[in-house]
Amino acid sequence: MLSRPIRRLNIRQNIPSIKTRTYSSLNSPAAQNFTVNGDRLWNDIYHAAQYSAPNPTTTAGGLSRLSGTLYDKQARDWFASQVHSLGAKTYTINSTGSQFATFDFSAAMPDVPPIAMGSHLDSVATGGRFDGPLGVLGALEVVRSLKEQDVRTFAPIAVINWTNEEGARFFPPLGSSVVYAGQSSVSVAHESKANDGSGGTLGEALKGIGYVGDGPNTFQEFPLSAHFEIHVEQATTLEEAGKSVGWVTGWQGISVFEMVFKGEDGHANTYPMDSPHRRDSLLGASKVIVEIERLALTNNGYTTVTGIQSGPVGSCNIQSWTKIVFCLMHHESQKLFAMGEEIKARAQAQAKLGGLEMEVDRVMHLEPGEFWPEAVDCVKRACGNRGMGAKTLTAHDSTMTTLVCPTAMVFARGREGISHCAQEWTSKEDCAESAAVLGKAVLNYDEVLRKKYEG
Amino acid sequence: MLSRPIRRLNIRQNIPSIKTRTYSSLNSPAAQNFTVNGDRLWNDIYHAAQYSAPNPTTTAGGLSRLSGTLYDKQARDWFASQVHSLGAKTYTINSTGSQFATFDFSAAMPDVPPIAMGSHLDSVATGGRFDGPLGVLGALEVVRSLKEQDVRTFAPIAVINWTNEEGARFFPPLGSSVVYAGQSSVSVAHESKANDGSGGTLGEALKGIGYVGDGPNTFQEFPLSAHFEIHVEQATTLEEAGKSVGWVTGWQGISVFEMVFKGEDGHANTYPMDSPHRRDSLLGASKVIVEIERLALTNNGYTTVTGIQSGPVGSCNIQSWTKIVFCLMHHESQKLFAMGEEIKARAQAQAKLGGLEMEVDRVMHLEPGEFWPEAVDCVKRACGNRGMGAKTLTAHDSTMTTLVCPTAMVFARGREGISHCAQEWTSKEDCAESAAVLGKAVLNYDEVLRKKYEG
Repeated sequence: MLSRPIRRLNIRQNIPSIKTRTYSSLNSPAAQNFTVNGDRLWNDIYHAAQYSAPNPTTTAGGLSRLSGTLYDKQARDWFASQVHSLGAKTYTINSTGSQFATFDFSAAMPDVPPIAMGSHLDSVATGGRFDGPLGVLGALEVVRSLKEQDVRTFAPIAVINWTNEEGARFFPPLGSSVVYAGQSSVSVAHESKANDGSGGTLGEALKGIGYVGDGPNTFQEFPLSAHFEIHVEQATTLEEAGKSVGWVTGWQGISVFEMVFKGEDGHANTYPMDSPHRRDSLLGASKVIVEIERLALTNNGYTTVTGIQSGPVGSCNIQSWTKIVFCLMHHESQKLFAMGEEIKARAQAQAKLGGLEMEVDRVMHLEPGEFWPEAVDCVKRACGNRGMGAKTLTAHDSTMTTLVCPTAMVFARGREGISHCAQEWTSKEDCAESAAVLGKAVLNYDEVLRKKYEG
Repeated sequence: MLSRPIRRLNIRQNIPSIKTRTYSSLNSPAAQNFTVNGDRLWNDIYHAAQYSAPNPTTTAGGLSRLSGTLYDKQARDWFASQVHSLGAKTYTINSTGSQFATFDFSAAMPDVPPIAMGSHLDSVATGGRFDGPLGVLGALEVVRSLKEQDVRTFAPIAVINWTNEEGARFFPPLGSSVVYAGQSSVSVAHESKANDGSGGTLGEALKGIGYVGDGPNTFQEFPLSAHFEIHVEQATTLEEAGKSVGWVTGWQGISVFEMVFKGEDGHANTYPMDSPHRRDSLLGASKVIVEIERLALTNNGYTTVTGIQSGPVGSCNIQSWTKIVFCLMHHESQKLFAMGEEIKARAQAQAKLGGLEMEVDRVMHLEPGEFWPEAVDCVKRACGNRGMGAKTLTAHDSTMTTLVCPTAMVFARGREGISHCAQEWTSKEDCAESAAVLGKAVLNYDEVLRKKYEG
């Protein structure tokens, strides 16, 4: 599904034609005066964090809100109540559960596709309070502030909670935005399989919590003029430079592989140790896991083995099959590809040494890329001297929307690169700063859009 | 439970005193003439193999009959019908589900504790048809032949199907014979936990199939004069020497360890690769798995990692916890202990390098040992020149009964050491030979016993 290189798509046929592009080094007049209420956003972050499975992660101040669970439903229901109380003009749930709310703020051009602010409310099993929620709650705070400050926009504004961004419970990640961007289909997304091997699917889980709707699924059905997203940085660039926010210029590429080793059943206590008698798949896989770490270090990339399963289950058997899932990351497309080829060759060699069969499948691939300069520029101007440019090391819903519409991201400073962890942290001030930047960026883009339409 | 060194117990107070020990180099008169019906035994092996979960192992000619499953119940019910049709004098099921049948064959001394033949009908998840069943079905064939040939014995004869020998579904193994030998209790055995993490227990499973009975649980409640067991060799000593059977002189020691590595949650794509930021428990565990293999080679022992689990489940997380279960085997007690100490030290060093916490627990330990010479001698005489002496590399119900009564084992030749595998194989002729040896060994021991009592 995502296994072919993703390319920018050219399916913007429903959008009014765009004439010229003029950038300014200053914020638009509306953006210059825009502010947010940092206390209110912080309270939302704390309030929404209660929708979390009761487990050690939650106790430690983190978030455990897997997609399609009761806790996800609670957060979604709360999100719906918020957009309704903010006077959403439209509110829809699509077939993959994503929630879209639009606001027109007496928009001068209500038929222009909205400028969206979106991210995700789901988390990994042992996650933090900021990864995902800050993007959605920051968007709500922007809408609240636009309303309070009676800001008039050219285009309508949309707020989106994308489904299953994490892919933590059901693989693959970016579960709904990938369909939106035309890279997958609703039925394929519904068939996303549970990572815990329980046999469940995303479609069943969404149905179970009442979040399979009839709203728009694709860019063609619901075109956006642009998409902006706040996200915690998940690295240390901002922290080391003493900057509270950042404009995100692009992303690192990611390849995810499943690799299965097959050996032979055998008695754990008695089978001769010397090869080729023993064909121990777990031993072979372990040697490859060690190679996968080396691969990152020798290629100046990133690698992680994210899961392992082996069998047969029992206390007295050589493991005759072992499956590992791992991801390779690099900023350069060619090096990412080369890392994949290198580890396949190394694994093949290890398999041969251990008398194993090895099968490998690239189950997801995201080419490294750059966001739209005109959208990035809007974020850059909004950041001013409190920000800096940076790249994200991972995929986001915005790395999907950017395939179909101008997209950029706002980084909020994190701590020590800690992410997907209860100890993830962004200060109240940095959360507020990132929401202010999000709002200003949207208003900057609104100005760009107005000028484009006015020609 | 089994974590302390097992010692020979001295709890034979209910047995009439034993006066002298006289061995002969020949079989007893009854043993000399004893034969079995190899076709009938082979038919039983094929017939009983149908009681197996329908899966690829079964299709491949193996056995998948985990303890406490429906298939285990079917095999047990069939066993019960067999002993009843053979005219068992008593038939009982004990609290841990073991089935005991006694036959007196007009025994001259019906009050003398019986000479037992026992093994197990359960298998590992992906096992062969011979490991376990051959011991029980061979015993049934001996009883049939004794009856047909109208053999009169001094002591009664018992046939036993021991519960959960494999420990494949519920840990620990030797689930019932360990209680019989006074090394554990019924309640501890009932609490044996499912290896698949499902939370089930052996006690619940036995209750579920109606196999928690009120029969005797311990040697004190049901003393035996001796215990004999046929088992496939699971190594290549007999095959390489061209011998069809063997007398088993002793067993290799086994230590089973659980080792848990704890690191830190983190984002798979973004967390800095350089230590000490990343604390990847799966990477640390993999390095230790590689060390565990080396440990066997440098110590001339055996080692196997029999299971691995890690978390959190998801597609985008560094694994913050990993648990491995492994077993170390050696013929020498001191070397077995030293291997355990060495791997603990190496794992501790790896954990330190990776910024991990490591906890280790020895969850089972069986000292290497020797069977009772007077019982081994009976098997040796029964083997004659078709057999040879050998050691078993693993634990059996007999390594428990030998702690409380004279015990010895008969080996049947296997193929290439393949065991716990659908491809396990012992020929019809070797199965028949092993059953003949079992019967002769019992008759030889019956003669020894008669002489002891007669003084």
